[in-house]
Amino acid sequence: MEKTLGELAKIVEGRLAGDPTIVINGVNSIDTAVDGDITFAVDGHISEAEKCKASAIILPSTVNEFPLPAVFVDNPREVFIKLIKLFTPPLQIKRGISDKASIGANVTIGKNVAIMPFAVIDDNAVIGDDVILYPHVYIGQHVKIGSGTLLYSSVTVREFCEVGKNVIVHSSAVIGSDGFGFVTKNGKHIKVPQIGNVVIEDNVEIGAHTGIDRAAMGSTYIRRGTKIDNLVHIGHSCDIGENVLVVAQTGISGSTKVGNNVTFGGQTGVVGHINIGAGSVFAARSGVINNTPEGVFYAGFPARPHQEWLRIIAASVHLPQILKKIRKRQRLENTEK
Amino acid sequence: MEKTLGELAKIVEGRLAGDPTIVINGVNSIDTAVDGDITFAVDGHISEAEKCKASAIILPSTVNEFPLPAVFVDNPREVFIKLIKLFTPPLQIKRGISDKASIGANVTIGKNVAIMPFAVIDDNAVIGDDVILYPHVYIGQHVKIGSGTLLYSSVTVREFCEVGKNVIVHSSAVIGSDGFGFVTKNGKHIKVPQIGNVVIEDNVEIGAHTGIDRAAMGSTYIRRGTKIDNLVHIGHSCDIGENVLVVAQTGISGSTKVGNNVTFGGQTGVVGHINIGAGSVFAARSGVINNTPEGVFYAGFPARPHQEWLRIIAASVHLPQILKKIRKRQRLENTEK
Amino acid sequence: MEKTLGELAKIVEGRLAGDPTIVINGVNSIDTAVDGDITFAVDGHISEAEKCKASAIILPSTVNEFPLPAVFVDNPREVFIKLIKLFTPPLQIKRGISDKASIGANVTIGKNVAIMPFAVIDDNAVIGDDVILYPHVYIGQHVKIGSGTLLYSSVTVREFCEVGKNVIVHSSAVIGSDGFGFVTKNGKHIKVPQIGNVVIEDNVEIGAHTGIDRAAMGSTYIRRGTKIDNLVHIGHSCDIGENVLVVAQTGISGSTKVGNNVTFGGQTGVVGHINIGAGSVFAARSGVINNTPEGVFYAGFPARPHQEWLRIIAASVHLPQILKKIRKRQRLENTEK
Repeated sequence: MEKTLGELAKIVEGRLAGDPTIVINGVNSIDTAVDGDITFAVDGHISEAEKCKASAIILPSTVNEFPLPAVFVDNPREVFIKLIKLFTPPLQIKRGISDKASIGANVTIGKNVAIMPFAVIDDNAVIGDDVILYPHVYIGQHVKIGSGTLLYSSVTVREFCEVGKNVIVHSSAVIGSDGFGFVTKNGKHIKVPQIGNVVIEDNVEIGAHTGIDRAAMGSTYIRRGTKIDNLVHIGHSCDIGENVLVVAQTGISGSTKVGNNVTFGGQTGVVGHINIGAGSVFAARSGVINNTPEGVFYAGFPARPHQEWLRIIAASVHLPQILKKIRKRQRLENTEK
Repeated sequence: MEKTLGELAKIVEGRLAGDPTIVINGVNSIDTAVDGDITFAVDGHISEAEKCKASAIILPSTVNEFPLPAVFVDNPREVFIKLIKLFTPPLQIKRGISDKASIGANVTIGKNVAIMPFAVIDDNAVIGDDVILYPHVYIGQHVKIGSGTLLYSSVTVREFCEVGKNVIVHSSAVIGSDGFGFVTKNGKHIKVPQIGNVVIEDNVEIGAHTGIDRAAMGSTYIRRGTKIDNLVHIGHSCDIGENVLVVAQTGISGSTKVGNNVTFGGQTGVVGHINIGAGSVFAARSGVINNTPEGVFYAGFPARPHQEWLRIIAASVHLPQILKKIRKRQRLENTEK
Repeated sequence: MEKTLGELAKIVEGRLAGDPTIVINGVNSIDTAVDGDITFAVDGHISEAEKCKASAIILPSTVNEFPLPAVFVDNPREVFIKLIKLFTPPLQIKRGISDKASIGANVTIGKNVAIMPFAVIDDNAVIGDDVILYPHVYIGQHVKIGSGTLLYSSVTVREFCEVGKNVIVHSSAVIGSDGFGFVTKNGKHIKVPQIGNVVIEDNVEIGAHTGIDRAAMGSTYIRRGTKIDNLVHIGHSCDIGENVLVVAQTGISGSTKVGNNVTFGGQTGVVGHINIGAGSVFAARSGVINNTPEGVFYAGFPARPHQEWLRIIAASVHLPQILKKIRKRQRLENTEK
């Protein structure tokens, strides 16, 4: 794959500064780019970009002068994603149903699918067009998978769950495992049947080793556009709103409702049965134990406004000395008495 | 499935208040119930239940008056579990050994099992009656699986491990992976062979993506009736007592011994080589770094009595202001001098 | 397997004290050893060892007198690992390629491999000599697996990733899942293609359910000799140095660079884009949010020198009382005014 810088500037509809005949044959990050690569920089990294070894750079149109060949655009990140796709043709996936896959009774399968060896589709499942199932995927009874959805190796989707269109689920994720529900009687734990399901809406992405438990009754929801990282736990009957970001190793306990466009930093914990207002951000390792309003930036455990938490953390460094002073004063006062 | 309210009252041995001919055809939670459903409520939710749309409600016998058709029982939760099972016949599981499964040499398999496609049972394993192995389960050499046990898709049970009767293991759980044991010499880590196994006793439930490491020597034990949630780590040579509850993303380090009927809230961490007394409760995110007595309620990191931790957390909010005052006083005193 | 104590003393090149004709037929830990076993003890456990039931004990050569039959050596732990291997012949693994495995086009496979049922090797992959692939392993397109490497059941290695020699990867680990990279525009998250790979160098061990994300561009590196425990998250484009220890449930965010011989205790969190100096130790649950120098011992969140953190934690216990005193003083002063 080769393009001239002039061709690329046209493709991304940017303003070219430099020789249009320069040949570009790869995309790379600022620090690893070599001759022949194109890279990008955003505000705060412009001076760093001046020293890079790429043959050309995508820059924000707010930049006026630059010593290297450049293409100026409104959104360098977005443009760069286009270029990555241009220079990296997608992996070759053979279409068709492998004769080593296992297809149950009364299964409906759409057009142009790729069902790889040892994938299992159980009875009464419905698989949309263009779906890709990697090896060792298990699709349970009565499951529905929307068109264009991609399930990597060893993904499980348990019975009656529904996965929307253009969803990506990474390897070994589990959708629809039983919620953790027990009634304790005389010290023994009796299982509460978990007869609900999980509904994953369109354009969701779910990370490796993430588990989303089925509802006891009704559904656990992951709403459209939400992206969940690796090793995340979503408890039964949660309702995770649209365009939410959940970073790795976060856990959200059962029946909690999360508004749209919330971001949870990594290793956050959220208790069950609460409401998280839309548009909020929780810093990594937040521990959320109460309802929270819309549009807040919280941190710490228990989670509180980020600035407040920063002040507590900053003050706590002085705690040993505060204690020392107070004790000294105490001794003085005791002596004076 | 349809029952009259009168029939249901008899089945659950409750006191009926309302029309016995009302037809019930579903179970549901208070907030999602519709006409035709039966639901339940316990103390603290009774007034909420008055507004629900169910056709009838299971209530504690301590409630005297209620505006909707109701059945009064001693334990509404427990009765409701019975009704869920009544209205939700279990998933149809075909019995037999799939011709797409792989069965090793010298394997013993009981009656009435369901071994699904691409399950692997390795040499010398013993599988009890009524066992269900979902697709992509791997049963290692010399493993024993007790009767009535259910292993969901992609579960691994490594060589020599033993799983009891009526155990449920959720998808992608791993039983018997090597413990994390190394001896460091000149900065290099030499693996300590992990030649023990894992013993899971009867009636245990293990969540998706939970890993239970095999002992270096001897056994890691999960005792009868214990329920473990998703993404939990149990280190090598742990001994987890009976009827313990371990909520999601908790980690228990190697060689720790946990008494019966302990509860660990989510994201708790426990160091290795300690003893946790029976009947204790650890709030979510506890960090347990020492032996703990029986019957305590602990929280925080390092874990301490819950009330004590709450007082520290409450006081810490005032820390920035304490610091300010102390500094002000200091300046005053310095000025006075 | 049986050896006399005299034979064992010769094998481990130790000094024998006791009857050389004693017959040893097993290895065990101090507290579970029985007659016929050999065990070991190191400083701090010598008096404990005096009461054990083993027939003989491996002891440090610094110990002079001991009441039971003993073999004195320089490094008892290391010697004991040798004895464990001697008394526990490795599991019998049948060599060859199972006719139930699926081998893609243009795959290269070395000598003496064991490819078990339902393992999948996708097109253009290269598998070295003596490699063992358990059932349900998925090897993606163009992947390279070095000689002597062992992948347990349900491990995924995604396309273009490289795994070195003598690597052990435990069940359900995922190597090469997409990094969590999105650009947000008008509240919607657009996926940044993750076109890099993962490079695992020689002698690495990776735990069950650990996920190592592929780089957006370039490679995520796990350097030689590093040992990673269960349920660990390594973000995209990280570079984890040599001989690093990462204990269970730790998460390291994208693009962070970790020096050689660092140890992360369990449930540690590390933010992205920072540098962790070589030879440092982070106590369990550390939260590392800044670059850290070489050779430090840190703890807490935000991580700081361990001693400092201990002092803060110790002082915080007195915080409620400090607050009480300050408030009392305040009231007194207010009254005096």
